[in-house]
Amino acid sequence: MTVKQLSLPELVDACLDMGIPGVGLWREPVRQYGLAAAAKLVREAGLAVTTLCRGGFLTAADPAERAAALADNRAAVDEAATLGTDTLVLVSGGLPAGSKDLHGARERIADALAELGPYAAGHGVRLALEPLHPMFAADRCVISTLGQALDLAERFPAGQVGVAVDTYHVWWDDRAPAQIARAGENQGCQGAAPASGGGPAAGRIHTFQVADWTTPLPAGVLNGRGQIGDGAIDLRRWRELVDAAGYRGPIEVELFNEALWEREGVAVLRETAERFARFVVR
Amino acid sequence: MTVKQLSLPELVDACLDMGIPGVGLWREPVRQYGLAAAAKLVREAGLAVTTLCRGGFLTAADPAERAAALADNRAAVDEAATLGTDTLVLVSGGLPAGSKDLHGARERIADALAELGPYAAGHGVRLALEPLHPMFAADRCVISTLGQALDLAERFPAGQVGVAVDTYHVWWDDRAPAQIARAGENQGCQGAAPASGGGPAAGRIHTFQVADWTTPLPAGVLNGRGQIGDGAIDLRRWRELVDAAGYRGPIEVELFNEALWEREGVAVLRETAERFARFVVR
Repeated sequence: MTVKQLSLPELVDACLDMGIPGVGLWREPVRQYGLAAAAKLVREAGLAVTTLCRGGFLTAADPAERAAALADNRAAVDEAATLGTDTLVLVSGGLPAGSKDLHGARERIADALAELGPYAAGHGVRLALEPLHPMFAADRCVISTLGQALDLAERFPAGQVGVAVDTYHVWWDDRAPAQIARAGENQGCQGAAPASGGGPAAGRIHTFQVADWTTPLPAGVLNGRGQIGDGAIDLRRWRELVDAAGYRGPIEVELFNEALWEREGVAVLRETAERFARFVVR
Repeated sequence: MTVKQLSLPELVDACLDMGIPGVGLWREPVRQYGLAAAAKLVREAGLAVTTLCRGGFLTAADPAERAAALADNRAAVDEAATLGTDTLVLVSGGLPAGSKDLHGARERIADALAELGPYAAGHGVRLALEPLHPMFAADRCVISTLGQALDLAERFPAGQVGVAVDTYHVWWDDRAPAQIARAGENQGCQGAAPASGGGPAAGRIHTFQVADWTTPLPAGVLNGRGQIGDGAIDLRRWRELVDAAGYRGPIEVELFNEALWEREGVAVLRETAERFARFVVR
């Protein structure tokens, strides 16, 4: 999504050129290109698909809407399995129109996970609940903190449900470092039995994503994620926190940024890789 | 601030007409009208000044900026005392330019409170730390949760430092209800010895403010606070929570909203009072 101006073949070529070993994909461009063709493209290029974004939107109270959401999430699991990734990121969904009941919405997510978790694990896919910044609580994601996400995830086996840690969403939260440690318990066992839906305890950090926080926020606040190094987040510190928690998986850069999308995609990818090396890795 | 299009005399007249017993004032319009004249106006009208907004911006690392901020906050305390209110609301301030150190900024606020708390108490004024929504953490207020605000406030006597609870800033936080209960401990003793800076333990809820959460957020996200009842927040529930915590002080409606500011002020005040009765009180 960081360089959505690139076609899938352009993205794959650019990743190979720059030595980027994996890529997180979004469902829409994959569908547009064709699921089977996309799977073949990345497989033949030897490029790992780190995650598929995204399932979720599981807060509907209406039975028909709820059934449609579950069906769509099962389809997303199938797509993840076809693409060869073991992680489907879930954005939980906001409040239904007219509702003011955050707690009820969170419980409906738990109900949905009870159905989707075993289905996903049966396909070798783990669900990664992504807490979104509290500014999205009403209209996009009622799970606003890593603590809330873990409270939900821990009702299920780690092989079914874990969390996505994104610096953009958690950086302000003084409790997030402790929650990362909590999420990382037994992280060394991650992937030991991904298809079993249970098995030995495994860590809950299913992916780690970075974006920087820049102000002022744009209208709608969705597409204002800052290029690595441009903002207020001590990204290296967060990388060290997930390191210390035992996370050894890929790190994804996920920027929704109108200004970056307007630029030439390969140049943006190159800049992002350089910033990543400078502000996240070193 | 909800009806900043009204002059102070217009505001006072409208409050008297509608039976609104108190008003929270902001420093800028008070200064514009003249501090002594404003104090006389509200006193003679028999209108309570519930709070003065705002002091704060205490996160500067530069010594000269820090000294200026402290001087400005002492002036704000003096203004509060002159206006006859016992509560000065503090917006803590964001990260200094180039800094990524939220913890350090929070500690500098504590250092400043150690100087300002006794000064304020000596003037019969309590400082109310207002946690602002996490979307303001970088550029406006590094205190993002009620829990963080209380962690800071509790280093000082309740007669010196407490908190401002604003639904707009805390509504997404599943931990906020427990923090309201924590803030309300000994709330019944509030005001027992406001000028002593200590005395018997008193509650930490120094003011309770309401605004609703509406989306989409406008660019800059500052002036998108929703009219009571228009948004996602169960305002009555939050009022019941501060009630249950023992808070018996005034409830303020604080809306920063461009659309409301463009309308005729008395009509907006009337609408707000009606919404308040319908969605907050009943």
